[in-house]
Amino acid sequence: MQRQGILFIVSAPSGAGKTTLCREVLDIFPGLRHSVSFTTRAPRNGEVHGRDYFFVSKDEFERMVRGGEFAEWAEVHGNCYGTALRTLAESREKGIDLILDIDCQGALQLKEKQVAGVNIFILPPSYSELRRRLEGRDSDKPDVIETRMNNAAAEISQARWYDYIIVNDQFPKAVEELRSIIIAEHQRTALMLAAVGNEFKL
Amino acid sequence: MQRQGILFIVSAPSGAGKTTLCREVLDIFPGLRHSVSFTTRAPRNGEVHGRDYFFVSKDEFERMVRGGEFAEWAEVHGNCYGTALRTLAESREKGIDLILDIDCQGALQLKEKQVAGVNIFILPPSYSELRRRLEGRDSDKPDVIETRMNNAAAEISQARWYDYIIVNDQFPKAVEELRSIIIAEHQRTALMLAAVGNEFKL
Repeated sequence: MQRQGILFIVSAPSGAGKTTLCREVLDIFPGLRHSVSFTTRAPRNGEVHGRDYFFVSKDEFERMVRGGEFAEWAEVHGNCYGTALRTLAESREKGIDLILDIDCQGALQLKEKQVAGVNIFILPPSYSELRRRLEGRDSDKPDVIETRMNNAAAEISQARWYDYIIVNDQFPKAVEELRSIIIAEHQRTALMLAAVGNEFKL
Repeated sequence: MQRQGILFIVSAPSGAGKTTLCREVLDIFPGLRHSVSFTTRAPRNGEVHGRDYFFVSKDEFERMVRGGEFAEWAEVHGNCYGTALRTLAESREKGIDLILDIDCQGALQLKEKQVAGVNIFILPPSYSELRRRLEGRDSDKPDVIETRMNNAAAEISQARWYDYIIVNDQFPKAVEELRSIIIAEHQRTALMLAAVGNEFKL
């Protein structure tokens, strides 16, 4: 009996380093893939349908919403993004682990739909360090930084119901912690019984 | 606020390599200690009271049993061995992680007493490999091996209710898995909130 794939749901406030962390563990685990979302926005240069996103029309996206095909979806700056239930179910059945980099609103939708997954929240070391990091990005104007700080506080208040919390203070340590969570979750009894239960009549 | 210490309870049938695995992670984590048991047996050469065991008289041990001072205890070949509730409580309060290498009967007693801990079961790759390992020990006679195989089957049937299962097939992989479980358990939200909840008002 093949073991099921695990869904790792990763959330963080902007500036906590979530994207870099996820990229790092995707490099470490060849069997781990990033969950491909559906979107109504146009493909950017170099983006590939089915690898970066499933690019669909607004009509098609709305049809999928009405059909209850999304585990979670949201509209951001006029574009829609969503994770299909089918994407998650197929990976689970094929024993493929997915990493889903998503905000708390999306993670809450998954929780409400009782989608099985491991919820991981990435924190910055402190609010002052988060501000320092956001200010270090030359691109962001002061009012944008204030908005991001307020959004961060709202996101961080959701950390309580996640399964794991990682503080991204020293990057290699945070990578090691995320990596360890991924390895440890494979050793959970429910999953391991599928792999070895037969040999040991468990 | 200081985080609490974690109790890692490790069980395995004889021949699965539990002792070597535990020794390895004790070397890796300076903050992890082996749980010191009370025993009525006489100290062996080089054994130190308070480091290897707390050596007590049969009378003293019985007094502790009557006083409900043990989280678990057992009599083996005429000697008594037990883990004091106080040992576990003190480590927890001081934020010291303990590894308790114990058979399923002992682990069940801890479970029944609702002692908080992470239960980890070490499996050999298969029954045939376990037999090969036991036969490879020159010391054991055939009837001893049969007894060990029967005991192994009884122990293994308990693996279902443990939190994690590790198959000790390739030793470095098993070490990595045990190490990852120990790291991951430190990232659990309940524990992390004690460490960072203040900064983030969680």
